[in-house]
Amino acid sequence: MSEVLATYILEVKQDNLEKKAEAIAIGLTVGSWTNLPAVEQEQLQRHKGRVVETKMVADNKAIITVGYPAVNFSNDLPAVLTTTFGKFSLDGKVKLLDLSFSEELKRSYPGPKFGIEGIRNLTNTYERPLLMSIFKGVIGRDLSSLKEQMKAQALGGIDIVKDDEILFENKLTPLEKRIPVCQEALRESYEETGKRTLHAVNLTGKTMELKENAYKAVELGADLLLFNVFAYGLDVMQALAEDPNIPLPIMAHPAFAGTMISSPDYGLSPGLLLGKLARMSGADLVLFPSPYGSVAMAKEETQAIARNLIEEDQFKKAFPVPSAGIHPGLVPKLIADFGMDSIINAGGGIHGHPGGASAGGKAFVQAIDAVLNNQTLVEATVDHPELADAIELWGGK
Amino acid sequence: MSEVLATYILEVKQDNLEKKAEAIAIGLTVGSWTNLPAVEQEQLQRHKGRVVETKMVADNKAIITVGYPAVNFSNDLPAVLTTTFGKFSLDGKVKLLDLSFSEELKRSYPGPKFGIEGIRNLTNTYERPLLMSIFKGVIGRDLSSLKEQMKAQALGGIDIVKDDEILFENKLTPLEKRIPVCQEALRESYEETGKRTLHAVNLTGKTMELKENAYKAVELGADLLLFNVFAYGLDVMQALAEDPNIPLPIMAHPAFAGTMISSPDYGLSPGLLLGKLARMSGADLVLFPSPYGSVAMAKEETQAIARNLIEEDQFKKAFPVPSAGIHPGLVPKLIADFGMDSIINAGGGIHGHPGGASAGGKAFVQAIDAVLNNQTLVEATVDHPELADAIELWGGK
Repeated sequence: MSEVLATYILEVKQDNLEKKAEAIAIGLTVGSWTNLPAVEQEQLQRHKGRVVETKMVADNKAIITVGYPAVNFSNDLPAVLTTTFGKFSLDGKVKLLDLSFSEELKRSYPGPKFGIEGIRNLTNTYERPLLMSIFKGVIGRDLSSLKEQMKAQALGGIDIVKDDEILFENKLTPLEKRIPVCQEALRESYEETGKRTLHAVNLTGKTMELKENAYKAVELGADLLLFNVFAYGLDVMQALAEDPNIPLPIMAHPAFAGTMISSPDYGLSPGLLLGKLARMSGADLVLFPSPYGSVAMAKEETQAIARNLIEEDQFKKAFPVPSAGIHPGLVPKLIADFGMDSIINAGGGIHGHPGGASAGGKAFVQAIDAVLNNQTLVEATVDHPELADAIELWGGK
Repeated sequence: MSEVLATYILEVKQDNLEKKAEAIAIGLTVGSWTNLPAVEQEQLQRHKGRVVETKMVADNKAIITVGYPAVNFSNDLPAVLTTTFGKFSLDGKVKLLDLSFSEELKRSYPGPKFGIEGIRNLTNTYERPLLMSIFKGVIGRDLSSLKEQMKAQALGGIDIVKDDEILFENKLTPLEKRIPVCQEALRESYEETGKRTLHAVNLTGKTMELKENAYKAVELGADLLLFNVFAYGLDVMQALAEDPNIPLPIMAHPAFAGTMISSPDYGLSPGLLLGKLARMSGADLVLFPSPYGSVAMAKEETQAIARNLIEEDQFKKAFPVPSAGIHPGLVPKLIADFGMDSIINAGGGIHGHPGGASAGGKAFVQAIDAVLNNQTLVEATVDHPELADAIELWGGK
């Protein structure tokens, strides 16, 4: 029988543990059990939740896993989340650590349309982490400023440049003009360097207009879509991923996700929300706070996200993109922590380079090359002045 | 100039307060400021966030209010939430307490389609709180069981009966059969009592299919729509509220909202999410945990939600529905705490009545009448055996 297993960590005393677990399994499914006549119990048996595991992990904290029969809900994330963590999310200190879907249930979710392999093909980039940079300070700027910034980044050897996630439809740089102008910058850069850079365009607007806006972005030549999925809903991203008329990779941004993952006592685990569920719903790349910067996430949390994005599954793999606080000196650490199948993504670490964004990009390319060639960064600085400047400014071994 | 004011409570030391506030106002808008040339500052002035207020409220906690120029974002909630609490939601201990929209910006949001007045007209119920009950234990049950439960509730004098929020599209009680069968029960009850009861039908399915499902519910005769808005997104509810082909009140359920409101350190305040934003986006009724039950919310939080739902505004008022742990003995307290413009909503307090759901409904009607007639509940038990049984079981003064 298909089911979804939900694993929670919650506040409960040892002597109340089994009772609490049963109350969840019954309360969130058939409602009552022990006082029902035998004939009704028989009728309801296949709808009844079951306690899979209970385990005390601290004096007043336990981990409980409950199985919810799939026959109880339609197989979409709003229904699954409402069943497993709807009313229950309001019931004191309780955090949803994991959801485990049977293979059969997973088949209703798209997973990444491109995945790591597809994006490597698009960027013609194999056997190294990809390099991404972020537009900075674009609010209130016009198209020429945007184009200039795009070209500077591309000339630095960046694989993907992403829009700022707070760049919405606006008069100065509307989607219809922004995409062609950025593509023009990318063509110019390609003519100079022979290296193609891609542009991830922020998909914004009202939920019910997103598909139309995405079609427009496709038509205008966007290479990828950036999407603030947690300000909309995972099921909305799934609809975009499932639409064959939107043949672009989706880059999920963690904006607003802090409302759901930051507390140790409430909400969802980062590995579940930004890892497993984002991948299931169709994210090809997922940004999350790196463990190094000022907006930092605990390393084990970031690794759980990355693991859920790349472990073997019926879905394609999605690229982990640890972000914030990244500079060239961190490249060896990033590769050690997240491997070759990850994306090195920087904003300030590119634009803040003493030589400008192009030099910033080059410093990253040099740092990645050094690691691939088993050089230390210090060794590599000898032939690479951009990397040397970066290491001097931000440090790095 | 139109703007959205965002008020946060966050962890910060006194000596870093002003710097932190400026960093938010700049970082979430134009990106940088002090090092910009004067000509650029002039160009960006109207896009720059401004610090409106800073105030230490504890040793290392401050409240900061920042104004975000509306020119920076499209006027939809995903854009507003991403701007004010996107990346920032991931930046350590920070909670979004309030968002304040200029009157001009508010005009882009629908507010309740019916509001309290409209729902009073639909239920022909004035000058008293409405009485609502919840289907219980309907998972795995068939249509005849559902009909029986619906009729029992209606015969008790209930104004609105709501679906269980975990009742999704299923083979036993699909929408297409559930609505007509429940309406049949309501007609039968009306013929016996002369009192019309309404049915709030759970609107479920994938986001992009919700409108079609709502049209179907309308056509089948649903009286209201129940909606697990936080498992979808406020902007999705707004789309439903704005659709003239969905001429039904929307009842917002707080399922999954605990992931965003329960922590004192992270997420959004309940008054903002379940009160102000739910009303703006078109909820006519909003359920939230009452301050009395086992799934309880602090009284000041519940009052903040209620206040935001009914205070004077350009939007219609929405009904507060404090829920969970409600029995007839609490009616005087509920009316004292939430006033006449609220809904008394019970599940166990109706179905658990020794005389069954009809007697449970009657006990609530009797308790409400007692309060309206300035009787104590104990006085009212003399003529009202159903209320007497309820008071004996659950207590109440």
